[in-house]
Amino acid sequence: MSPQIPTEQMAQVINKTGGPVEFKKIPVQKPGADEVLVNIKYSGVCHTDLHAVNGDWPLATKLPLVGGHEGAGVVVAKGELVNDIEIGDYAGVKWLNGSCLSCDFCQQSDEPLCAKALLSGYTVDGTFQQYCIAKAAHVARIPKDVPLDAIAPVLCAGITVYKGLKESGARPGQTVAIVGAGGGLGSLAQQYAKAMGLRIIAIDTGAEKKKMCLESLGADSFVDFATSSNVVKDVQAATEDGLGPHAVLLVAVNEKPFQQAAEYVRPRGTVVCIGLPAGAYLKAPVFESVIKMVTIKGSYVGNRKDSAEAIDFYRRGLIRAPFKVVGLSELPMVYEKMKKGEIAGRYVLDTSK
Amino acid sequence: MSPQIPTEQMAQVINKTGGPVEFKKIPVQKPGADEVLVNIKYSGVCHTDLHAVNGDWPLATKLPLVGGHEGAGVVVAKGELVNDIEIGDYAGVKWLNGSCLSCDFCQQSDEPLCAKALLSGYTVDGTFQQYCIAKAAHVARIPKDVPLDAIAPVLCAGITVYKGLKESGARPGQTVAIVGAGGGLGSLAQQYAKAMGLRIIAIDTGAEKKKMCLESLGADSFVDFATSSNVVKDVQAATEDGLGPHAVLLVAVNEKPFQQAAEYVRPRGTVVCIGLPAGAYLKAPVFESVIKMVTIKGSYVGNRKDSAEAIDFYRRGLIRAPFKVVGLSELPMVYEKMKKGEIAGRYVLDTSK
Amino acid sequence: MSPQIPTEQMAQVINKTGGPVEFKKIPVQKPGADEVLVNIKYSGVCHTDLHAVNGDWPLATKLPLVGGHEGAGVVVAKGELVNDIEIGDYAGVKWLNGSCLSCDFCQQSDEPLCAKALLSGYTVDGTFQQYCIAKAAHVARIPKDVPLDAIAPVLCAGITVYKGLKESGARPGQTVAIVGAGGGLGSLAQQYAKAMGLRIIAIDTGAEKKKMCLESLGADSFVDFATSSNVVKDVQAATEDGLGPHAVLLVAVNEKPFQQAAEYVRPRGTVVCIGLPAGAYLKAPVFESVIKMVTIKGSYVGNRKDSAEAIDFYRRGLIRAPFKVVGLSELPMVYEKMKKGEIAGRYVLDTSK
Amino acid sequence: MSPQIPTEQMAQVINKTGGPVEFKKIPVQKPGADEVLVNIKYSGVCHTDLHAVNGDWPLATKLPLVGGHEGAGVVVAKGELVNDIEIGDYAGVKWLNGSCLSCDFCQQSDEPLCAKALLSGYTVDGTFQQYCIAKAAHVARIPKDVPLDAIAPVLCAGITVYKGLKESGARPGQTVAIVGAGGGLGSLAQQYAKAMGLRIIAIDTGAEKKKMCLESLGADSFVDFATSSNVVKDVQAATEDGLGPHAVLLVAVNEKPFQQAAEYVRPRGTVVCIGLPAGAYLKAPVFESVIKMVTIKGSYVGNRKDSAEAIDFYRRGLIRAPFKVVGLSELPMVYEKMKKGEIAGRYVLDTSK
Repeated sequence: MSPQIPTEQMAQVINKTGGPVEFKKIPVQKPGADEVLVNIKYSGVCHTDLHAVNGDWPLATKLPLVGGHEGAGVVVAKGELVNDIEIGDYAGVKWLNGSCLSCDFCQQSDEPLCAKALLSGYTVDGTFQQYCIAKAAHVARIPKDVPLDAIAPVLCAGITVYKGLKESGARPGQTVAIVGAGGGLGSLAQQYAKAMGLRIIAIDTGAEKKKMCLESLGADSFVDFATSSNVVKDVQAATEDGLGPHAVLLVAVNEKPFQQAAEYVRPRGTVVCIGLPAGAYLKAPVFESVIKMVTIKGSYVGNRKDSAEAIDFYRRGLIRAPFKVVGLSELPMVYEKMKKGEIAGRYVLDTSK
Repeated sequence: MSPQIPTEQMAQVINKTGGPVEFKKIPVQKPGADEVLVNIKYSGVCHTDLHAVNGDWPLATKLPLVGGHEGAGVVVAKGELVNDIEIGDYAGVKWLNGSCLSCDFCQQSDEPLCAKALLSGYTVDGTFQQYCIAKAAHVARIPKDVPLDAIAPVLCAGITVYKGLKESGARPGQTVAIVGAGGGLGSLAQQYAKAMGLRIIAIDTGAEKKKMCLESLGADSFVDFATSSNVVKDVQAATEDGLGPHAVLLVAVNEKPFQQAAEYVRPRGTVVCIGLPAGAYLKAPVFESVIKMVTIKGSYVGNRKDSAEAIDFYRRGLIRAPFKVVGLSELPMVYEKMKKGEIAGRYVLDTSK
Repeated sequence: MSPQIPTEQMAQVINKTGGPVEFKKIPVQKPGADEVLVNIKYSGVCHTDLHAVNGDWPLATKLPLVGGHEGAGVVVAKGELVNDIEIGDYAGVKWLNGSCLSCDFCQQSDEPLCAKALLSGYTVDGTFQQYCIAKAAHVARIPKDVPLDAIAPVLCAGITVYKGLKESGARPGQTVAIVGAGGGLGSLAQQYAKAMGLRIIAIDTGAEKKKMCLESLGADSFVDFATSSNVVKDVQAATEDGLGPHAVLLVAVNEKPFQQAAEYVRPRGTVVCIGLPAGAYLKAPVFESVIKMVTIKGSYVGNRKDSAEAIDFYRRGLIRAPFKVVGLSELPMVYEKMKKGEIAGRYVLDTSK
Repeated sequence: MSPQIPTEQMAQVINKTGGPVEFKKIPVQKPGADEVLVNIKYSGVCHTDLHAVNGDWPLATKLPLVGGHEGAGVVVAKGELVNDIEIGDYAGVKWLNGSCLSCDFCQQSDEPLCAKALLSGYTVDGTFQQYCIAKAAHVARIPKDVPLDAIAPVLCAGITVYKGLKESGARPGQTVAIVGAGGGLGSLAQQYAKAMGLRIIAIDTGAEKKKMCLESLGADSFVDFATSSNVVKDVQAATEDGLGPHAVLLVAVNEKPFQQAAEYVRPRGTVVCIGLPAGAYLKAPVFESVIKMVTIKGSYVGNRKDSAEAIDFYRRGLIRAPFKVVGLSELPMVYEKMKKGEIAGRYVLDTSK
């Protein structure tokens, strides 16, 4: 390990489920044979991080835990088996910190389904620290012309919505409805959809979001779910033949849209669930689902190839993810705003502050 | 029209929703330019026919109505545009009596989704008569070496389960769980699955059904949902790696299995709904569905190509559908047995009696 | 038939193989039960039309023959079975004038493979006349906001390249090399590719074509096959990782590129052949093709759905096909220019002149 | 490393290109952190091994070299990062000894296309020795109820033809023609095809092979390419509608069949090349390939998942690969027979002799 790597660093630590997070000094770890040590420069803050603090998902976290899974930085050390990434390279630490690379799911490129998957900021320490360990095979390769602060939120939110769009099966020229279009995931989803040649029905509420979706994010039409007297009809009417969108992307955080999408999606269409409203259920009438041949599917985070592709779309200038930079020390403030639903865009933490 | 076609014939007619059916003489129709007249020799009786009588589906029937949509017979007349089927050929009249062949769905071979689809025994007169009209492009071509009584039930039940298996995406060597395996649809589904190189977990109840599934229908294992203390665990344990079947085919008539399948299906697996329990809902937890990347889809009846393929599997001797022949006049008796759930296998009506 | 339809009309007629074409009066036909009569306003001229005159393809034409298969006009009469297109609607007559809609290929939406397919301007009279017959199920539906002169060349060239791009399997963000990028098909191919989110390596020769590809048609890079000392290396170098494009679209009219593409395409990549150089052969070394797992496939014209989609891309303003309008009477002049290779863009004939 | 592992072992060593092989004592290697040491019990001998001796493929071998890539044995040591396979487990060493698991191809489960792939018996020492090193992620997991001698040939030949069948896209009930059906690869291909629900046209020559294909290997029909006056017609006639097989699998060792398959394959069908005749070319007429929309593709060895699936078909008793066991010392005799084309079935070497 090179001399400039300190033995101690600052980190935000969860000591017990429910929080709070403590900003303190902890040791810097050494990478194993197949791992790299990444000097995290910036880390996005995701809703999932709050779930990790609160422990309200049906999956236990490591404790004590350093949260965070949208970390962008520089490789500063690597294990002896690592030969396809170099010291000094840019790298991203994602939700999927590592996987076995050998099981049935890893063999079919579904690493996120690996039963031995390591989850950054959840089952292993994540990116709310200055030096983070990750499996070399899993860190995202970030080209040198990509700014590390801007790419941070893409590493989770961007990849996730891109994956969802791929899973939808929608082809260029077809239409996708995005539910929760004005939120963080939804904003990215619209830009990816546009770059993929899709047409977009943005579903959200409020004049401001409407303006943003139609003027900046690429939406072809907007349906305000709060003021519409009949969301199903209005969404279908937003397609030229009135038969509804070929796919629906659910990035909303409440349950209702999960149960309405199957009604307005086009026959043979696909409803993709990405958001994870706590305790929510998918529900659809059997009769209509069968005679319309509707598909409902869950889409989790992207695999490594999805990740590389999603980053490449960003690098090519096709994606703009608005973000605000604050110091790592200010994480509690970000959580407060998140709890109150006051965040537009994404907060990114500068680990040097 | 040739002289041997009578002007009148016997038919079972529903005069008003709720029934009863009346066995009486009605006129024989003449085929339009793109239609054929089929002298129905045998017609299967399907649960859907009872729904047509009762009017308990959210779709109105024609009235008065001749029911039936599993009719096998001989072409006796055809319109002037029909040049790819000849007088004397065997033909099958299916649920899908006709479709526009031009809309977006017909263009992509999804004729069952055509908004102008004609449904035999539902929106147009069906096969519970001696002479039935159908669109030439839609009648099933039946090779001369196939017995007309035996093929009748394949024309709906067989095609439907075959389509469901195709929709499941399960590949040869993978495992499909069939829920309701011992029933009419389930028995056929097992045989098709086996002929397609799939491995089968039969889910049903009772020693008799267990024996039939394992010894005659090709099942590799059997889970008794009534006696199992944990169906989810038992189904998963029936796969070698314990991760569950790659696909689940739901041909059950009650709601519960529709909500359990998403739990035991393998990550990345597909749950296909075929059965149509009245008023039932698909329901699945969002969190687990997303992180397991589960797909739930409805599968309706097959298109024309599915139909031809399903018939071909039968012709090759790979499918045996047990059936019992009674006269067309005895239809009310069949309905009575159906209401009481007393039918094992399929009843087939001989229209000459 | 309405009174304003004349009984005679002007047409360009091929009386014997080898030509010439004769501009003369011929009768207007009446549509059959499943046909429409389209008052052709404009018709594009395609290289295939010249093959029809010369009879140098291994498929005989009807004689005497009215050529042409890129006709855009107005429906003026229809048969009694036609109920999904109305008098006054815009319609396009394509290469595929009709097909049986019932055979194995039609059943799977591969109408161009139908053994009974009717080919406009080849096996049935085409669009170099004022009133043309076509099967109602096959005429392209053209929205009223689309100009008929501009859409004409899209009806063959546009649909064909769009189909080829779909067949390539290239996904948004991936790279396609287009060989013959500066020609008529190539120009359209680049625009469709861009609209589908693909990245483009244009392969052609000359500074003018280079400028056009890079500045107007959406190409990301250009390889001049005439001046390059190593086309294979240069094409591969035009992709970021140097592994070559994910797909290659061959719209060239000479043989050599057909044999080079398999060398520079990316492992697992697909080479799609569209152009039809007379007597040419696909040729690829078995060893390299196997260990690179290369796919080589032929792509013919689009089916009805491809056609509707290709037109829709145009309608949305994403495609610009440069064309020059001359009178129908001037067809021989167009053929002369075509023989000399003097045509840039497409000639469109105004049937009123 | 456990005490029972010797420091020396017997191996067949190629000292220089062109051979001969020398049977001698060499040291036993120690596995690296991500590797296992497999005590090879049996190793199949493949035609590729002879190419490695002769150096007649356009890819250089390691020298000196221990050949062999169909090795079945027992794991006797493993590196410290290996935790999903245990000492004592059965394992198979395949052609693909290792790959980077990180490149674009490994990320999409195409490990055989990895530019850093290690090839057993070619770029790294293979299985013609008693103790062989391989990357843990790549050794095939062999269940304990599978005999190690019988599975050896499946590890290359079986996996390769199974992969080819998957790549063909043929679905259960469709027809595949297998060219070279009576040879080693062809015999396995027929059995896999049958287990996958496919129908088979066996193409080879001679009464003995005909009998074997039709009576033992599952073929539905046989075309003798040597006695047929028109192979194209005869193959097409072997399908019910005369349109030809949906797929063709080329496992022949001469060039001609590679150029004939595109003619008899069904429109929209796929020709898969597996065999590697030295210096051979794929060749197909552009015109016919385009208007028939034929696909020609190369298929290399299977990835890890293909391998596991191919082994599982064997384990289930669906595949029988005839083989003859001789001692490792007798390898030169096997090569002699191979050169003379005298081998029917597969030779398997017992490394203890």
